[in-house]
Amino acid sequence: MRAQNISNQEILDVYQVEFLQKYGVRTDLADEAHQVIVEREGPPELPGVIVENEETENAAICRVTVENEVGARMIGKAPGHYSTIEAPGLRQHNREIQKDIGGLVAKEIKWFIEQSGLSKEEPILVVGLGNWHATPDALGPRVVGELMVTRHLLELSPPELRTGLRPISAISPGVLGLTGIETSEIILGTVSQIEAKALICVDALASRSVGRLCSTIQISDTGINPGSGVGNKRMSINQETLGIPVLAVGVPTVVHASTIVSDALDVLGGKDPTQIHRDKDVPRKTSFNMDPQSILNPTMQPSPISEQDKNRMLSEVLEPYMGSLIVTPKEIDELMADVTDVIAGGLNSAFHENVDYSEIFQYLS
Amino acid sequence: MRAQNISNQEILDVYQVEFLQKYGVRTDLADEAHQVIVEREGPPELPGVIVENEETENAAICRVTVENEVGARMIGKAPGHYSTIEAPGLRQHNREIQKDIGGLVAKEIKWFIEQSGLSKEEPILVVGLGNWHATPDALGPRVVGELMVTRHLLELSPPELRTGLRPISAISPGVLGLTGIETSEIILGTVSQIEAKALICVDALASRSVGRLCSTIQISDTGINPGSGVGNKRMSINQETLGIPVLAVGVPTVVHASTIVSDALDVLGGKDPTQIHRDKDVPRKTSFNMDPQSILNPTMQPSPISEQDKNRMLSEVLEPYMGSLIVTPKEIDELMADVTDVIAGGLNSAFHENVDYSEIFQYLS
Amino acid sequence: MRAQNISNQEILDVYQVEFLQKYGVRTDLADEAHQVIVEREGPPELPGVIVENEETENAAICRVTVENEVGARMIGKAPGHYSTIEAPGLRQHNREIQKDIGGLVAKEIKWFIEQSGLSKEEPILVVGLGNWHATPDALGPRVVGELMVTRHLLELSPPELRTGLRPISAISPGVLGLTGIETSEIILGTVSQIEAKALICVDALASRSVGRLCSTIQISDTGINPGSGVGNKRMSINQETLGIPVLAVGVPTVVHASTIVSDALDVLGGKDPTQIHRDKDVPRKTSFNMDPQSILNPTMQPSPISEQDKNRMLSEVLEPYMGSLIVTPKEIDELMADVTDVIAGGLNSAFHENVDYSEIFQYLS
Amino acid sequence: MRAQNISNQEILDVYQVEFLQKYGVRTDLADEAHQVIVEREGPPELPGVIVENEETENAAICRVTVENEVGARMIGKAPGHYSTIEAPGLRQHNREIQKDIGGLVAKEIKWFIEQSGLSKEEPILVVGLGNWHATPDALGPRVVGELMVTRHLLELSPPELRTGLRPISAISPGVLGLTGIETSEIILGTVSQIEAKALICVDALASRSVGRLCSTIQISDTGINPGSGVGNKRMSINQETLGIPVLAVGVPTVVHASTIVSDALDVLGGKDPTQIHRDKDVPRKTSFNMDPQSILNPTMQPSPISEQDKNRMLSEVLEPYMGSLIVTPKEIDELMADVTDVIAGGLNSAFHENVDYSEIFQYLS
Repeated sequence: MRAQNISNQEILDVYQVEFLQKYGVRTDLADEAHQVIVEREGPPELPGVIVENEETENAAICRVTVENEVGARMIGKAPGHYSTIEAPGLRQHNREIQKDIGGLVAKEIKWFIEQSGLSKEEPILVVGLGNWHATPDALGPRVVGELMVTRHLLELSPPELRTGLRPISAISPGVLGLTGIETSEIILGTVSQIEAKALICVDALASRSVGRLCSTIQISDTGINPGSGVGNKRMSINQETLGIPVLAVGVPTVVHASTIVSDALDVLGGKDPTQIHRDKDVPRKTSFNMDPQSILNPTMQPSPISEQDKNRMLSEVLEPYMGSLIVTPKEIDELMADVTDVIAGGLNSAFHENVDYSEIFQYLS
Repeated sequence: MRAQNISNQEILDVYQVEFLQKYGVRTDLADEAHQVIVEREGPPELPGVIVENEETENAAICRVTVENEVGARMIGKAPGHYSTIEAPGLRQHNREIQKDIGGLVAKEIKWFIEQSGLSKEEPILVVGLGNWHATPDALGPRVVGELMVTRHLLELSPPELRTGLRPISAISPGVLGLTGIETSEIILGTVSQIEAKALICVDALASRSVGRLCSTIQISDTGINPGSGVGNKRMSINQETLGIPVLAVGVPTVVHASTIVSDALDVLGGKDPTQIHRDKDVPRKTSFNMDPQSILNPTMQPSPISEQDKNRMLSEVLEPYMGSLIVTPKEIDELMADVTDVIAGGLNSAFHENVDYSEIFQYLS
Repeated sequence: MRAQNISNQEILDVYQVEFLQKYGVRTDLADEAHQVIVEREGPPELPGVIVENEETENAAICRVTVENEVGARMIGKAPGHYSTIEAPGLRQHNREIQKDIGGLVAKEIKWFIEQSGLSKEEPILVVGLGNWHATPDALGPRVVGELMVTRHLLELSPPELRTGLRPISAISPGVLGLTGIETSEIILGTVSQIEAKALICVDALASRSVGRLCSTIQISDTGINPGSGVGNKRMSINQETLGIPVLAVGVPTVVHASTIVSDALDVLGGKDPTQIHRDKDVPRKTSFNMDPQSILNPTMQPSPISEQDKNRMLSEVLEPYMGSLIVTPKEIDELMADVTDVIAGGLNSAFHENVDYSEIFQYLS
Repeated sequence: MRAQNISNQEILDVYQVEFLQKYGVRTDLADEAHQVIVEREGPPELPGVIVENEETENAAICRVTVENEVGARMIGKAPGHYSTIEAPGLRQHNREIQKDIGGLVAKEIKWFIEQSGLSKEEPILVVGLGNWHATPDALGPRVVGELMVTRHLLELSPPELRTGLRPISAISPGVLGLTGIETSEIILGTVSQIEAKALICVDALASRSVGRLCSTIQISDTGINPGSGVGNKRMSINQETLGIPVLAVGVPTVVHASTIVSDALDVLGGKDPTQIHRDKDVPRKTSFNMDPQSILNPTMQPSPISEQDKNRMLSEVLEPYMGSLIVTPKEIDELMADVTDVIAGGLNSAFHENVDYSEIFQYLS
């Protein structure tokens, strides 16, 4: 099964590379990928890709369905469902907005659980990926720390009382560098030991847009694939490798320094900034005010910068840390605390429907 | 196998209860149990129990071997080996002493590993039991955080280079209340998944003697049994339940409030204080100065206090928290940091013999 | 002024010692002191001491006014006002109850501020006493970390906009052992530098009753006196030493191990348990069930235990840590987080009246 | 005195602005400023500026003396002494190297203290600037947490025993946003209250070169000036404002995202990379391989990018966080822990000469 998975992984990687070569963009977020294409190719008609948008008071929700291999090839993402909740308000440290977004997260999670055909009483295991000790990578473990777990309580209570209650358990397996074990191995072992019927992974992602940091939440049913996230979790964690449905809840908490530098070079290289910057928070006119020409000798045409030249310049600016350099807002600690409450609140209310939602929020730190 | 284990556990429990009834003492430390008996019954000749003592500059090492069921019955502990390192110097926040004790820990660990007949290249999994978020219970997870894990590195290196190198991995599974999963289940799942050949559990213990806090280290090959430690880990973790050798490294970090109160009542009840307090740090004469008579009306004999009366008085003093009240030194945070370095340093050097020991210590925070 | 203060302090100490000798009780809480007397001497008629009780849904509020030296002598507390909010519900980790108690704290704080005759625009400095690094002593610094400070903002805004807004500032000076400076010196220096017109100290206290832990809040206008709290803050911090009104907000977070042991010995010594245990959480009948006689040989009378014997026994049980041993609930981290929110929420709403209170609470972690 | 200080500050600001306009570089590090000039203007002969270099096994030490206003104008730094210790080895988490660098720090500190003409027994106050809660800004408070303070002990000991011992005290005043008080006000108040005879500020700096992060230590006697550091400390802290010698120990822990982006644009704009990147860790040839021409249409000359255009592009890439975006290595937590040990170890041994240095290091976490 491992081999099988890897080969599929390889195919997916090929798609991503193709996408990267075609659009010069690498992203963990399906709606980012979709936006890129639309901007380049105009009308959002992609074979095998369905996109649905919803606006709420505090958020913009984008649901992308990749129907098949064709769509996967188009968009560089595995077939499956992707819901992205963009909520700039999460940067305002306002508990009311947090509650509202928490409710949206709960709604999406419930939808995905129904999709997976799980019964109300089948046990779910939540896994907090990432590293306790690195603030921007600690989302998963921190969410797990705020979950209301019930599996151990239900096991003690008489069957007749368990009706309609879902056993929830949660672990934070740590990262390869600290455990010496692939996260997926610990998950695999635990899942088979406790016979979980579905898995939900919570993870910090790397975004390519600063505007997404700690304010965008992506939920998908395609699992976790290599290289995602800030930490080190290389083997895939998905239905193929685990044999049960796998939901992934991800929040961008960092941008790689190399990403923003290469964005800057693209702007300079003459790319339409709207292709680089897709964050609603930036008033479009800023973009239109922007005239790449003005940077360069009027007598010449800007020519895009080759990847090779870019990499040379990146190493100029980012050595000796290069790849390990991450960009975060100064107030990252507070932003992480808030988005942790939102995700944990959303999961708790999705899991324990008969419990009053506002009550649930009370029990979050 | 579970049933099998439980029945054995039950037998062991019976022994402990018998021991408790006979001596009014419940302890996680084999040498404490042994001392109690010796004090009551004089000559330390116990059938089925072998005791060996060693004095070093900074520590007193006591090695107890429980040979068989007879010995187990006598001392209320499972058959196996128990090494206890008592090092009051660990309370002095002195790095030299910490290094020295770390060396003693390494020596004992190596001995236990040899006993278990493990080859130099067979993989060991270290498990940090306990709760990250409760200082006195965080010993295990904190030690794991300072271990040099090598399994993932060795898997990447060519076989010829791995000669004589032992793959080490480490996890901190969390506590039942936060995960909803018995710690032993996560361990069981992981062990079978990564095919570990031996397990080492690091755990915070409850001691019955204040003098032991953060200054005594017990290593045994009988695993972790129900109710041990500060946290909540009820199923046994031992060779029976896991099928591989299980070493347990434990350090007392708390005393239950009920323990010290009941000790006080025992003193008053006329028990010879030496039976209650066995900590080397207390000059014996203090004890001899002590005259229980003086407390009571000279015309009467002190009569020991019944468990029932004791419990009444305990609830008077300890409600409403009762069982959950723990006693720690004010400086517990610093003491925990030091003993964490000692255990982690000891394990690292026991695992990676060809590495210079002082070097290893350098890599500890 | 310092000398002046010290001599007064000495007088106060004398009162406390007298009180201790007379009733064998040392407490930081005025209502505890009052209860002791009432229990011993019946009718709560104390010259110079006025007591007012109020019951709310989640709390019992006791307001003690020590009118003069006579009252001070009676009750062993400096002349002034003491409000004690007892709220066992704070142990339930329920945000609604926390909000409610936060409101009560705000109400008391406002009353004390009015008492002090401060105008709406006069600046207040909040000081978080205690040690960041020791969980049970970190109340003050943690509360300060959640305060909405405004002084720097108001200084930047035009005078006409500042009308009715109170400049709030806050510091956590640390403890003597870590700074080498008496906390009171740092406060004195800062107060005179920024010309604060009132001071509010937040501090963790040692209680003598387990039932009070993290569930009782005392507010007084007599400042902080030597030896209070868990940490080390020896010089007085009060109107005498600072020249401005000083409010003290205190919460018991630990009981000294020696306290509960000596309580136990008192029970055994034949004292009426009601004299030892005054926590509403313990159903009285438990106390009546209790029969000290049953502990001892029926032919004798129990005789109270002398302080001297008690100390001998304490050292038997508590060496080598003795004084530094503290008793806390296992879940202290969570309890501290909750009571921190309550105090910070209460102060924020007392300071910023025109801001909606529920909003304020939203901004707490 | 404040006015006086501000006017001087203004002059200094003018110098910095001039320097910025002339070289397009803003830096907290004197040797960076010097290098820039040398690279542009060749021979390192600057009137009023003396530079001395020293190489050790693990570090390169550069001592810059700005003799007068002329030199200050040349280099855009206040007159005074600046020692910069560059030690890339600090990125290796190796305790031996840390000890070595700690020794170098101690040596420099002693030199500065002698310069200031302080007697062996005059008291020094150490101030840890920055924010406990933001990892990269917590250097100051963390160093203070590891200092051996002695002031309170010496005050208790008889004068004859204090001979040759220096009273050390230390505080972490917090940041304006959390206290509402200018850090300098708290320092001013405390200094005058305890009559400190010299001040040492420890602070996290923003560097403009990634290669400096957590591996460069600057010590100067010109104090802390506006805008330095990650946190918010706007008023000057120097001999002018405090009336006593002020040493500043700074370590770059972040690079502003805008800095590396603008560096990238400069490379592209055709600037000689050696002018941008001066980190020894980057093999020069990398730079020579680099050919800005290759990026652009061969028929044109690259033209440097105007500040205005740069800012447009920066906002394109960095909105909505812009200024608050910081760049750190992923492993920042571990790097901070190590450099904290180095600074604290260095200060402790500089302060307590008669104490064995290796001993001192033992007492660090």
